[in-house]
This record gives sequence, structure tokens and C-alpha cells, in this order.
Amino acid sequence: MDANELKVLAFDIFGTTVDWRTGVAEQVARLARARGAEVDAGAFADAWRDRYGPSMDLVRLGELPWMNLDALHRRSLDELLETEGLAGSFDGHDRDELVLAWHRLPAWPDAVPGLVRLRRRYVLAALSNGGFALLTRLVKAAGLPFDCIVSAELSGRYKPDPEPYLLTAQLLDVPPEAVLMVAAHVWDLRGARAAGLRTAFVGRPMEKGPDRAADQAPPEGADVTVASFLELAASLDC
Amino acid sequence: MDANELKVLAFDIFGTTVDWRTGVAEQVARLARARGAEVDAGAFADAWRDRYGPSMDLVRLGELPWMNLDALHRRSLDELLETEGLAGSFDGHDRDELVLAWHRLPAWPDAVPGLVRLRRRYVLAALSNGGFALLTRLVKAAGLPFDCIVSAELSGRYKPDPEPYLLTAQLLDVPPEAVLMVAAHVWDLRGARAAGLRTAFVGRPMEKGPDRAADQAPPEGADVTVASFLELAASLDC
Repeated sequence: MDANELKVLAFDIFGTTVDWRTGVAEQVARLARARGAEVDAGAFADAWRDRYGPSMDLVRLGELPWMNLDALHRRSLDELLETEGLAGSFDGHDRDELVLAWHRLPAWPDAVPGLVRLRRRYVLAALSNGGFALLTRLVKAAGLPFDCIVSAELSGRYKPDPEPYLLTAQLLDVPPEAVLMVAAHVWDLRGARAAGLRTAFVGRPMEKGPDRAADQAPPEGADVTVASFLELAASLDC
Repeated sequence: MDANELKVLAFDIFGTTVDWRTGVAEQVARLARARGAEVDAGAFADAWRDRYGPSMDLVRLGELPWMNLDALHRRSLDELLETEGLAGSFDGHDRDELVLAWHRLPAWPDAVPGLVRLRRRYVLAALSNGGFALLTRLVKAAGLPFDCIVSAELSGRYKPDPEPYLLTAQLLDVPPEAVLMVAAHVWDLRGARAAGLRTAFVGRPMEKGPDRAADQAPPEGADVTVASFLELAASLDC
């Protein structure tokens, strides 16, 4: 891959750019304390996130109509609270607040300084399955210096379907091979590569906390493999 | 209007946030010198911009298919060069370069400091008839601290049709009355108000240069009238 032929870097957000587990667990723990509910907040965050892929697949396969990530998060939260015997502890207002936990998440420590360097040379887009409103607020609150927000919502399809990847190239008026998809997840990079994008794997070994393994190696054909956004900047001469 | 009920400020770009006339005239003058063509660059920029409204109206009325602003700019440039007897001086490559002049324009001096203050309290969106790629590059090059880009292109309709205004509220998940449209143009604010948005008129008396009058007064019903983005920040307690 020639770094000169790249024009746009598209970043996955949850797990790749921000630490969803720490952020969601903290907010769950705080509300649980206020409600006097006993919750293992880290495990709760894990179980909630585990429902993300399957819930999204229901939309991708047409078993659910299009709904944005907030709606999917609320749906899986309701199920999870029921399963965990916690349905009585959190009312509708509490659940709305918990869904908004996904709008306020801490960036990995290397994310902002890495993006600052990369932004000097490339157009930086946030490309996530999160909704446009969620992403705009999350990026703003975390101080992430993206040039634009491109939610999967704009295409009406979720990654790893090709539409969100191709829409990013189309909206920014570049060919797919001028876009580098940056993600910590093999499934995302496979989708991006199938759509014709370049791919960069960023290892985020702590994404799922200390006790569960995150994706450790890139999928076949990845153009770049790094351990941080700073390393990505160095590898692209930024 | 209660500033506490506002959530999003949507800014028009050409004329409102950036000084298109100075920027386009400089780039026209530079290329004309290189080609040995005699062009009054300020008058040329004016004549080109004069074709913007009518060309957009052809799309709005269905007489032209949807095309983005770059394509409309190229179309009116070709016509203008013909009319001015300059068609022989600028080849296809030159014309592509001239169209890109609209992607690199200087911000009005109050724009960046005003946006920095306003951004602490509100979500700031660029909402222009410029295409998504154009706006992303323009905002990046001018260092404008927007939280997101919302081009009319995303709705497939041009302002002042209601779709671009309503899409902004919808994508950011707020009711139309929680969005303040900020513009220097009466036609834009009328469209925004008809769609249910709040409106702020920013006077930009030099938009069309020293010899032609810009809009001087707000349309009926405007919620705020100011002379700069800094004054807007002060009026919203930012």
C-alpha cells in the first residue's frame, strides 16, 4: 500500500477509538448504586455488548426493520435486565439514561494524539454502526478531532454490509481504495476489504477487559497492523 | 427564544461563515495570470456566484437531475467562460481546478473564535448546499471547529426546500425548534423558519464586495440578528 494514494482514514469507534467497557461499566455502576441494585458492572457491560452483533444481524438479515443503535441498545438492555432479574430495579427513565451511556465514552489514551498527527495529512472520518447523533455527541465529548461523521445510519445498512464503506468513499468523492478502514475487529476489516477499501488492524487487547480475549491478529490481507493510533501515524509518515 | 431550548446550531457556509468572493477571486486571478488571460477576477467571482441560485433552482424544480454543487459550479463556469469570450483560455483541467476554488475559502475573521465559544454549549453543524466532500475539505482547510458536516446532498434536495433543514434535526435527534439556523441570507432563513427551525441573521455587508449590496436586514420572524459570530455567542450567553 502506498500512503500517497490514501486520502481518507475511516475509524471504527467502539473498541477501536473509545474504551466502551470502562465507560459503560462506570455509568452502570453509578446508576446501580443510586438504585440500590447489586450489579457486576463490568460483566453487565460485557453481556450488553455481546448482544450488539446478534441484534445488528437481525436488522442485516431483515428480521427487524432498520433501527438505529440506540434502539438496538435499548432492546438488548430490556432483555438483559429481564434475564438478570433486574427488570424491577431500573424504570423507563433509567433505561433511557443507560442507553445514553454509549454516547459518553473515554477515548483510548493514544487516540487523540494519534488523530491529531494523522489529520495533518488525511481526511479523518468516524465510521461506526452508531447513529449519527450518538457519534456526533460521543466524538464531541471525547474531544476526538475528526473531520466528519459518517454513520452507517446514512446508508440505512450496518457494517459489515458493503454500503457504509462504499458510502464513505462516495460522500468524500474518492475511490474505495483511497480509504483506509481502521478497526480493532476482524469482522469489520473483512467487510471493508470486501468493499474495496484498504485496511488497518489496531490491536486493542483490553477492549473486553482483563479476562476476555479481544481480536489479536489482523484478517488476511490487512495492509497495516499496529498497536496504537500513534504507531499508525508513524507507519503512514505522519 | 429561550437559549436553553436550543441544542444545535446549523451554519450556512458560503457568505455566512467563509468569504467566497475574496477566495474565489484570488484563485481566478492567479490562474488567469498563469494563462495570460485578462479577467476582472472580482467581477468574475460575482458573475459565477450569480448563477448559483438559478442553477440550483433548475434542480429544485426538476428541470435538471440531482447533481452536487461541484457539478453545478462546473456547468455555470462553462457557460460563463463562453459568455465572457474566455472559453479558449481555460482547458478542462483548468476548469476542474477553478471548481476546486470553492473548496478552499477563507473564514470571516470572527468565524473561528465565535464557533469556539458557541461549541462549548451547542452542537455545531455545517449545513450548506455544498456537497459533503466539498464541505468536509473546506471546513478542514479553514480550521472551522464544527462537530459535524450535514450537506444538503444527504437529503438529495437543496435549501430552501424543507428536507435539508429537517434532516439536520432528524440526524441529530432533536426537534426542529431545537435547531438554530445561522445565515446571512434571507432566502435561507425563510426556508429554515418554514421548516420549523429557529433563525439567526448574521449581517455580512461585504459578502458581495464593496460595490454590491448584500442582504442587510433579517426576514420577518428571525429570532436573533447579529453582526458576527462573536455577537451571536454573546447573545446566547456563550
